[in-house]
Amino acid sequence: MDEDEGPARPAAGSVGTTASLSLRVGQALFSSASLLFMSVGVEFYSYTSFCFLVTIMGLVIPWSTTLAMVDIYSICIGCPLRLPGVMVIVVVGDWVLAILSLAAACASASVVDLLVHEDGAYCPPRFCGRYQLSAVMAFLSWFLTAASSLSNLWLVASW
Amino acid sequence: MDEDEGPARPAAGSVGTTASLSLRVGQALFSSASLLFMSVGVEFYSYTSFCFLVTIMGLVIPWSTTLAMVDIYSICIGCPLRLPGVMVIVVVGDWVLAILSLAAACASASVVDLLVHEDGAYCPPRFCGRYQLSAVMAFLSWFLTAASSLSNLWLVASW
Repeated sequence: MDEDEGPARPAAGSVGTTASLSLRVGQALFSSASLLFMSVGVEFYSYTSFCFLVTIMGLVIPWSTTLAMVDIYSICIGCPLRLPGVMVIVVVGDWVLAILSLAAACASASVVDLLVHEDGAYCPPRFCGRYQLSAVMAFLSWFLTAASSLSNLWLVASW
Repeated sequence: MDEDEGPARPAAGSVGTTASLSLRVGQALFSSASLLFMSVGVEFYSYTSFCFLVTIMGLVIPWSTTLAMVDIYSICIGCPLRLPGVMVIVVVGDWVLAILSLAAACASASVVDLLVHEDGAYCPPRFCGRYQLSAVMAFLSWFLTAASSLSNLWLVASW
């Protein structure tokens, strides 16, 4: 490698950049919103899909918060994180959480759709609105997690 | 680049290798099985999620069959496909179909779960078994599509 090149330019959205920090903050916000809409004052535990959504959102929140703090630290010291071992863990964790978020969001959305289009006895309007909002928030959280994992995967693959 | 290196060794599972051919054949088989279990003799069209599954499986079958034929052709002439434009289309198509397959499989699985655990009036046992088999086949098809897309993305990113 030419020494002139210096360290590789960090890919947009990979760990330790401002873009990554905004993605992580967005993930934490949307997954918290999804968790709150689903769990506060609503009987979510009677449906498997809703319990699954709550579990996965409960995993995404600490994961994104931790990585947001890593990003803040990297930005403050001005040196993006480039340890191969850590990057692989971040990529694998992001992928697993992105797949599980999508699965939970789709499962919840389809159950909400079924409940809304049934006779209505199962789903008072006040509850259904919150279920729908929760599913939408979970989709947004999935989208940001997928963006993070894709940019980190790209970085690892281009090493 | 050193001229001694010759063409890059194709990544396992990327377009034009035997591994890719087996993945594509598996995708076509599992998605056909999912489509048949869901659509033959079952009233799938009363549920949005099942219609979605049928649509997506109907997209995966021609896509995987076409790429399987490309793989067979590449293996026969002994030269894996390495046109950057085509590879990008393959990667993007695989990703979109993998995401949609996972979404359809999860949506169907959650609706089947809800139907089974409801009072049973909505889902005679003969139908429910077929819905469940169809969802399982869709998950297997998603898994193989994700493997294809991941290995092709890895190849494109490492160029």
